Amino acid sequence: MSNTSHPFMDCLKMVFNLFPNWKRATEVKKLGYKLHGNPFSTNTRRVLAVLLEKGLSYEPITVDLKTGEHKKDSFLGLNPFGQVPVLEDGNLTLCESRAITQYIAYVHSSRGTQLLNLQSHETMAILTMWMEIEAHQFDPLASKLTWELVIKPLYGLETDHMVVKENEAGLEKVLDVYEKRLGDSRFLACNTFTLVDLHHLPNIQFLLGTPTKRLFENRPKVRNWVHEITSREAWKMACDPEKSWFGAGYKIYGYPSSPNTRRALAVLHEKGLSFDRITVNLTTGDQQKPSFLPINASFTDRSLDYLCSKICLGLNSWSSIPFLLIHISVWST
Amino acid sequence: MSNTSHPFMDCLKMVFNLFPNWKRATEVKKLGYKLHGNPFSTNTRRVLAVLLEKGLSYEPITVDLKTGEHKKDSFLGLNPFGQVPVLEDGNLTLCESRAITQYIAYVHSSRGTQLLNLQSHETMAILTMWMEIEAHQFDPLASKLTWELVIKPLYGLETDHMVVKENEAGLEKVLDVYEKRLGDSRFLACNTFTLVDLHHLPNIQFLLGTPTKRLFENRPKVRNWVHEITSREAWKMACDPEKSWFGAGYKIYGYPSSPNTRRALAVLHEKGLSFDRITVNLTTGDQQKPSFLPINASFTDRSLDYLCSKICLGLNSWSSIPFLLIHISVWST
Repeated sequence: MSNTSHPFMDCLKMVFNLFPNWKRATEVKKLGYKLHGNPFSTNTRRVLAVLLEKGLSYEPITVDLKTGEHKKDSFLGLNPFGQVPVLEDGNLTLCESRAITQYIAYVHSSRGTQLLNLQSHETMAILTMWMEIEAHQFDPLASKLTWELVIKPLYGLETDHMVVKENEAGLEKVLDVYEKRLGDSRFLACNTFTLVDLHHLPNIQFLLGTPTKRLFENRPKVRNWVHEITSREAWKMACDPEKSWFGAGYKIYGYPSSPNTRRALAVLHEKGLSFDRITVNLTTGDQQKPSFLPINASFTDRSLDYLCSKICLGLNSWSSIPFLLIHISVWST
Repeated sequence: MSNTSHPFMDCLKMVFNLFPNWKRATEVKKLGYKLHGNPFSTNTRRVLAVLLEKGLSYEPITVDLKTGEHKKDSFLGLNPFGQVPVLEDGNLTLCESRAITQYIAYVHSSRGTQLLNLQSHETMAILTMWMEIEAHQFDPLASKLTWELVIKPLYGLETDHMVVKENEAGLEKVLDVYEKRLGDSRFLACNTFTLVDLHHLPNIQFLLGTPTKRLFENRPKVRNWVHEITSREAWKMACDPEKSWFGAGYKIYGYPSSPNTRRALAVLHEKGLSFDRITVNLTTGDQQKPSFLPINASFTDRSLDYLCSKICLGLNSWSSIPFLLIHISVWST
């Protein structure tokens, strides 16, 4: 789960050494949401899934769980409980993945996938009840199984099969209730996909790679539901660190008719990466205005050439290109 | 925790035998919220606390946990997970105590104590985050301690002191974070009492009667907070089954200037019982109208005399008076 030795970090350092003023530029220009977490953590993926369902951009900040970065003072200042993820939205700092997902779903209720069921107090009550069921009935069992069957082996620890047996027995009972519920309702809270279903995804996804998979497969309605929710594009992207973590947070400052902008867009589309478009209107000289200059002032044609070659080189190992290179880049010239 | 042999039930049966049509009358007249639970269960008390903070009436329906009533088919129809409490509000049936408290707090946001913090998305996000902290950081430890130190001894089981030690160590860390937070904020989510503080109450109250109390006492700000939230009138009533469970659900149909109404009010006040006043306007003949007749039609002066004597007899053993006796009674004549 470590990323300290990731080529991304090395490349970032190199870029900062080459162009020290780029660092300052990125400090000036914020990406909006900052998500501190780890792309392999269940709780981080829960938040990623919501950001991607809503089509929001975010800056992923890797917390190295293997070296215990989440228990060090710098991180404890963000979350005194020492757990990922943490979302920063301006001055607001939030921990607890399910609180973050609810916040994003409310703030952006009219954008992207509608993850709530806001018609009435009654529909919201049923949604809340099923969120609590996930948290208090499903998660304690599923998390223990994920720990025993997925995480412990990764850390070279031995799986306790008694614990597995006990928690699988509990999970069977919970899934029996789900099987009945999914006979009455297409998804758990109502007939549309909501936060309730989404909250289940991270543990289910890991357990599908373990023998516990059979508990989902044995129940036809649960099996269909699992298939449907794990097939969502946003979820598939959340599970692909290359796309949703190391390659996330791109902002393209550009102009639709600029050939340089188009080239960059083509590359990003080709790689299936998500990004935000920010228009720099060349016909009104936006590229010379004070709002844009901090992003671009240090670039010359020579640095542009350098950037282009870096991107081309990066096509075969995309994650090694620091996203800052693109974020503050200059296809609008 | 059993109430099957409670005098309440015996008395109820006696009354139904004496006045069979009373039963029909209670089936006609609903009390609004029906709360299935047990007055000694932490999760039931969480919901009771909200109902009492909001000054709402409710019909308590005892689920006998000691005989496993919550695992029997009749109850599993209400909550397939076999846990108390369950709230019935017309056709809406809700389980999970924290979902019920949120529902009540939203629906009655303008009534009684304001338990939410609805000013902005940010204040709601912080409230939600602290609700999640209670559920995922505090509750797992506090519930295990309550189980080991309070419930197991009640059932004649032996406390596992290793489990106590381990969970106390975890709770110390959580309370250290609370101590710091309560230096910045009077209550956990903000400067007013909210659902966040309320959700903590049931476990804290039980743990104050155990050696774990010292963990709260050792931290000055936590100690003050615990003292403040456990001193609330609504909470004290929630912890008093005589007042909030066996004596709950009274509805007084009456008229302020009626001596009979006043006599009943005096008794209820004297006993510190909560009740709802429903005005039957005697000056406009409401007591003869079809809306009131189903409640009162079967009563004669003779039955009134009987009721009065029952109430007087009940003063020394209040919980043995079935609340139906008062609920459908006739102080408005």
